Formats: sequence, C-alpha cells, structure tokens
Amino acid sequence: MSLPSSYTFTANSTHCFVHRFPPHRLLTCKPSKMSWFQKSFSLKAQSRGSYLITPEVTSNLPEIGDYKVGLLNLFIQHTSCALSLNENWDSDVRLDMTDAMNRIVVEDKKYEGIYRHDAEGSDDMPAHVKSSLIGVSVTIPITDGRLNLGTWQGIYYMEFRNSKHRRSVVATIQGEKTSSTS
Amino acid sequence: MSLPSSYTFTANSTHCFVHRFPPHRLLTCKPSKMSWFQKSFSLKAQSRGSYLITPEVTSNLPEIGDYKVGLLNLFIQHTSCALSLNENWDSDVRLDMTDAMNRIVVEDKKYEGIYRHDAEGSDDMPAHVKSSLIGVSVTIPITDGRLNLGTWQGIYYMEFRNSKHRRSVVATIQGEKTSSTS
Amino acid sequence: MSLPSSYTFTANSTHCFVHRFPPHRLLTCKPSKMSWFQKSFSLKAQSRGSYLITPEVTSNLPEIGDYKVGLLNLFIQHTSCALSLNENWDSDVRLDMTDAMNRIVVEDKKYEGIYRHDAEGSDDMPAHVKSSLIGVSVTIPITDGRLNLGTWQGIYYMEFRNSKHRRSVVATIQGEKTSSTS
Repeated sequence: MSLPSSYTFTANSTHCFVHRFPPHRLLTCKPSKMSWFQKSFSLKAQSRGSYLITPEVTSNLPEIGDYKVGLLNLFIQHTSCALSLNENWDSDVRLDMTDAMNRIVVEDKKYEGIYRHDAEGSDDMPAHVKSSLIGVSVTIPITDGRLNLGTWQGIYYMEFRNSKHRRSVVATIQGEKTSSTS
Repeated sequence: MSLPSSYTFTANSTHCFVHRFPPHRLLTCKPSKMSWFQKSFSLKAQSRGSYLITPEVTSNLPEIGDYKVGLLNLFIQHTSCALSLNENWDSDVRLDMTDAMNRIVVEDKKYEGIYRHDAEGSDDMPAHVKSSLIGVSVTIPITDGRLNLGTWQGIYYMEFRNSKHRRSVVATIQGEKTSSTS
Repeated sequence: MSLPSSYTFTANSTHCFVHRFPPHRLLTCKPSKMSWFQKSFSLKAQSRGSYLITPEVTSNLPEIGDYKVGLLNLFIQHTSCALSLNENWDSDVRLDMTDAMNRIVVEDKKYEGIYRHDAEGSDDMPAHVKSSLIGVSVTIPITDGRLNLGTWQGIYYMEFRNSKHRRSVVATIQGEKTSSTS
C-alpha cells in the first residue's frame, strides 16, 4: 500500500501528521475528524399548535457547520409534545396538522370516561397519545456542513398541551468533521 | 498548536499515550474512547398492552454506563408491536394508550371485509398498522453514562397482538467512552 | 496492559500496524475500521400506495456489506410520503396499510373546508399528516454486513400523493468495518 511521505491519524482530540519513515516525527496536529457533540437547549415556550423551528434549531447548533458528513439527532425530553419534519412554506399546513391530530385522537372534554388519566385536564391524555404517534425524536443527515433536508422540509415542534410549555431538547451531532486547511 | 509532552491517539481497540517528541515512545494504552456496542435480547413475553420497559432495558445494557456521550438505538425485530417513549409514572397512561390505539385503528372483529390480511385473526392487521404508526425503533441520547431521558419519560413496549409474544430487540450503542483513570 | 509486539491504530483513512517498541516503525496499513458513508438515490416513481423497497435499498447500498456493526439511516427528503418497516411477505398487508391510513386521515374530496391547505388537491394535506404520523426516516442496525431485520420485516416506502412521484433518499451508514485480511 502506497502512502504519502507523511500520514495522518485521528488522536483523542487531535488529528496529527507524522513522518511516514523513521523517526516518525510528529509534524502537526489538527482537530480530530471523527467527532461527537451534544448540547441541550430550550425551545421558545408555546401552547397547543405546530411550530416551524428550523431556524431556532440551526441558530442553537452552529456546530453543524463543522461536519462534512454526519447525523443530527434531536430528542425532546417530554411526553406530551413531539418533533417531526413537514412542509416549511405554507403556515396553513401547521394549522391543519394540529386540527388533524385533534380529530385523530379524541379529547374527552366532558369527562365522560374515555380516559382514566385526566387529572391534569382533558388535553393531557390525548397529548400523550399524539406524542407516541408522532414521536419525540428526529434524525437528520448532515452533508457538507448543512442539514440535508429536502426543499420543502422543515423541523416541526408540535405542542399538544393547551397552556404554554417550555420544552428541552437534547441535540446530538456525530460525524466526520471537515478538514481545516493547515 | 500546543500539545502536552505526551499525547494520545485512538487505536483499533486501545487508546495510547505516546511521547510528543522523538523518539515518540509508547507510554501506556487504555481502552479506546470511540466505540460501538451491539447486543440482542428478548423482552418478557406479553399480550396486548403497553409496558414500561426502562428497567428491563437498562439491566440488559450495563454498557450504557461506559459512555460519556452517545446514542442508544433500540430496534424491535417484529411487525406487530412497537417501541415508544411516554409517561413513566401513572400506569393509567399505559392502559389509556392501548385503548386509544384500539380506537384509532379499527379492528374487524366480525370479519366484514375491512382487511384482506386476516388469516391470523382480527388483531393481526390492526397490529401491523399500529406498528407503523408508532414505529419499531427509538433513539435515546446517552450523557455521562446514563440515558438522557426527561423526568417523566420511560421506554414503552407496545404489544398489539392478543396472545403473548416474546419479542427480540437489537440494541446498538455508539459514542465516546468515559476516560478511565490510568 | 499487555500488547502484542505490533499494535494497530485507526488513522484518518487507514488503519495501521506499528511496532510496539522503539523505533515504532510503521509495518502496514489497511482501510480504517470506523467509517461514515453517505449516498443519495431515487426510488422508483410510484403513485399512492405502500411499496416494499428492501431489494431496491440493498442494491443501492452494497457498502452495507463492509460493516461488521453499524447503523443505516434512510431519510426521504419529502413531506407527503414516508418510510417504515412492516411485513415483507403478504402483499395484502401493503394494500390494507394504505386503506388504513386513508381511514385514519380523512380526505376532503368535496372541499367542504376540512383543510385550509388544498391548492394542490384533496390528497395533499392528508399526505402531509400521514407523513408525520409514519415518519420520513428509519434507522436499521447492521450486523456482520447485513441489515439486521427480523424474519418478517421489510422496508416500506409509503406514497401518499395520487400521482406518481420520484422520491429522493439520503442513506447514511456508520459503523465499524470488517477487518480485511492482510
């Protein structure tokens, strides 16, 4: 196998160039290419509805720009809201999405015994069901320092409780970092 | 770029300290930090219902404790059950969740032709639909050796078939391991 | 800690064997074990329905065979279709799945005002709702060079629009590659 006169390796937190031939002298080190990054942040508090949060996510995660190839996992640490991907242009889609979820999961507004779990209000148990239907986590590919979303895709935060809630998100980025010029 | 007088690199299965300056003598090796781990295990057999399996998952995966930052992917290898995340405290939520799924996906108990696929019973095709609605996989962040779940979040196994089934899960952990003291 | 007389490390794109003792001479290099791979491809154009695409996915991704342990993430870059995992044998399940989704998410064929977003047709907004219910992404474990699916699991592409659409998928593979013999 042919190698250049220096070669590189990925160290714990650095990416180093070493002479290929003895004495294998260390030439230079750059940031490692394989990398994990994790950060928690809160979303703007919202009441029941569907919200496009792509700008809020990317402004909290400038680190996405460091990755040549990778994945972003967003995980919302709650059980009565959800994360999803959907249409990013027409705000009517968000309104219709909320209405559709309200139709799919019945709410027992008169407390007629549809749900056992209703101490926090009639919106509570339907919110739990919607959360499992939509899911609390999305995984998005990163390509050349950007989320590789389709033209019409945006990140949705869907709040299913009536009152405003401030929700926490754990963002995990992993991948290969872009080589910086040395 | 400044380096300490020894530096580290991540070898195939070890993480080694080498003198920074010639002759680059190897000092010591520790387990590698970047790591993949995969394991299959079976869940306790259950019939139709929603089950909180966080303790069952964590007792099967003590390896979570080795990771400083990472992700756990749980993948159930079946098509008529699901994995989800939801409320971990009130068991009524699990009962209501099962009822809600039964309302959302109609069951053709009198075999009136709602479904083509009914050879295994009226619970079979609704189970497939529910499995796709909820999903067979969850991805959970790992932080400082623990699943980074919200206060009220637990892992749900939702069984959609009437009779008891023993389900297989493939668990994949990846991330950066905690540095052990040397 | 005991080491063999040569040891290995994972370099940027190579996996090298070096003498353990001074002068740490480089012996040989093989392809790196930890690896990321990403590729986009289009699915065969389809109109409303559920399609088993396991063969289409694996024929587009021979690279899966290179990974001893890992994960495949498939991400469809659209907002009115979905990816899922479900029964791979009886084609009736796919027909029933499509019908079930049509029952769960009402379509406003007479334009009676159920949805605000209807400029592209009555199938448009229900397709967005179904896409969020099922999801646009699946993550599948890789074990010993194969997708570690259950016996009955196959990859579904669910198209929710009436007319034929050609959909783009971003596939991201990450994991530890199989050691090649040297």
